[in-house]
Amino acid sequence: MDRLELVKSTIKGYFDDLGNSVFDAFRDDFSFGKMLRSKLIFAIAPDSAYNIKLCAIIELIHFASLLHDDVIDDSTLRRGKISINAKYGNKNAIMLGDILYSKAFYEISTIDSNLSKIVADSVLKLSLGELEDVELSKSFNIDENKYLKMVEYKTAALIEASAECAGILKGDHSDKYKIYGNALGIAFQIIDDILDVSYDDSMIGKNSFSDLKEGKATLPYIYLYNKMNTKDRDNLLSLFKKSLSSEEIAWIKQKMQEYDILHEVKKVVDEYASKAISVLGSEDTKLEMILKDMLDREF
Amino acid sequence: MDRLELVKSTIKGYFDDLGNSVFDAFRDDFSFGKMLRSKLIFAIAPDSAYNIKLCAIIELIHFASLLHDDVIDDSTLRRGKISINAKYGNKNAIMLGDILYSKAFYEISTIDSNLSKIVADSVLKLSLGELEDVELSKSFNIDENKYLKMVEYKTAALIEASAECAGILKGDHSDKYKIYGNALGIAFQIIDDILDVSYDDSMIGKNSFSDLKEGKATLPYIYLYNKMNTKDRDNLLSLFKKSLSSEEIAWIKQKMQEYDILHEVKKVVDEYASKAISVLGSEDTKLEMILKDMLDREF
Repeated sequence: MDRLELVKSTIKGYFDDLGNSVFDAFRDDFSFGKMLRSKLIFAIAPDSAYNIKLCAIIELIHFASLLHDDVIDDSTLRRGKISINAKYGNKNAIMLGDILYSKAFYEISTIDSNLSKIVADSVLKLSLGELEDVELSKSFNIDENKYLKMVEYKTAALIEASAECAGILKGDHSDKYKIYGNALGIAFQIIDDILDVSYDDSMIGKNSFSDLKEGKATLPYIYLYNKMNTKDRDNLLSLFKKSLSSEEIAWIKQKMQEYDILHEVKKVVDEYASKAISVLGSEDTKLEMILKDMLDREF
Repeated sequence: MDRLELVKSTIKGYFDDLGNSVFDAFRDDFSFGKMLRSKLIFAIAPDSAYNIKLCAIIELIHFASLLHDDVIDDSTLRRGKISINAKYGNKNAIMLGDILYSKAFYEISTIDSNLSKIVADSVLKLSLGELEDVELSKSFNIDENKYLKMVEYKTAALIEASAECAGILKGDHSDKYKIYGNALGIAFQIIDDILDVSYDDSMIGKNSFSDLKEGKATLPYIYLYNKMNTKDRDNLLSLFKKSLSSEEIAWIKQKMQEYDILHEVKKVVDEYASKAISVLGSEDTKLEMILKDMLDREF
């Protein structure tokens, strides 16, 4: 069985441990997604005794956080399927999230207290990041630093923790993998932000230009706002949290082109990518590849 | 400063650590309650280096669980004040709960991995217990064993973990305090169930006879149902999840008296109390006192 399959069967074993008949209903709705964090862990610590278990724990935490995020964001779709909150109600999604979080904390505490500390800290950060995301979404945020800090917490923290924990499993207690994971995680989110304003509806699974509608003034919007004149700014602000018409989308796209916004935002991605690369050694070709694959999502 | 005050200031310090401006709004709404779990920890390990910290962590977890419970149960009151979900909305209550849970897991992982394991396991149990409570409340549950198992998870698990962790801090790794805490926790909940059907509205802060309205067929109701004839059973079932009139309350009270239900239920409390006492030694007078004080709540 390949390693990712072993992670999947470990997670299924955790579900069995929970042994609650109520829980059975949810079991088939657990979607594994792309398992990026597991791939990262295997790239760092392919031969560790605990890498499968670490992957299962991190995937469980990621899934728990998505369960609560979808309740908080009123999302009805997740990974192309109807979300748990939409299917079973918000309350079940909250309870299931709590169960999976605590199962994950229990399992990590059976490995090593260092790993427990790192993982708990990352969940704390992603929870604070979610709160900050909701807060920033109340009005059109134009503060780049606040935005990047939120992304660092909400998206990068768990990726960073995955890399750092994998490093420890490998016996490398330096900051190397932590720094790599942090930069990778931030770059990952910014590329997501770029994708949202890059594609036509026909070209991408999720609705494009959905971020602005959801109140998320991402980096492209922050840069755009800061370059615009007062009249255009007012127009942009008037589109915040609205369902956009194709004319309005066309206008945003045209303005993004006019100010070369995506080029500017990609420079930020490149900075984080360079930071991630800078800590890697010649033995870390797999991590270079993961970064490269991620950057290629842009095009 | 007395010990409970030190616990409070430790919790406030944790809030400061969170350092999120959004979080400030909630700070004043944190209500410490009776701190029963802290009192239990101090009764077991009064001189331990980490007892204050353990108390702060357990109180944080207890508060986080109440935040999520109140969302799930649509409660608008908590400890005599408007609940966080009612004041700030369900989403904020969910996020705040997640933040406090993960802060607590982080802090416990800085003490000892044994304690991390016990605490995470108890949070897993209380989350599963909450799910089971919701499930049992969907119809009038008449299964005593299911009810007691749910109570053991939802209410007793964290009390049990508090006692067991305090024992470990004291250097006693036996099952003694765990067994005591488990029995104390179950007895505690059953007394709560008795109180709900014992008092007049004028005599108690919370609404009496509220359990049945909320779909909670507690031990007194389970015993009553099992003793009744078919006609009375049908009448009792017709009151499930209804707002009760004073005539309906009087009817339930009269039936409880007729079948001597509270006497039967108190015998169950006494069994758990005896179990708790049976593991204590002559040095555990404070734990006997805690149990006795709790039993006295009945009258």
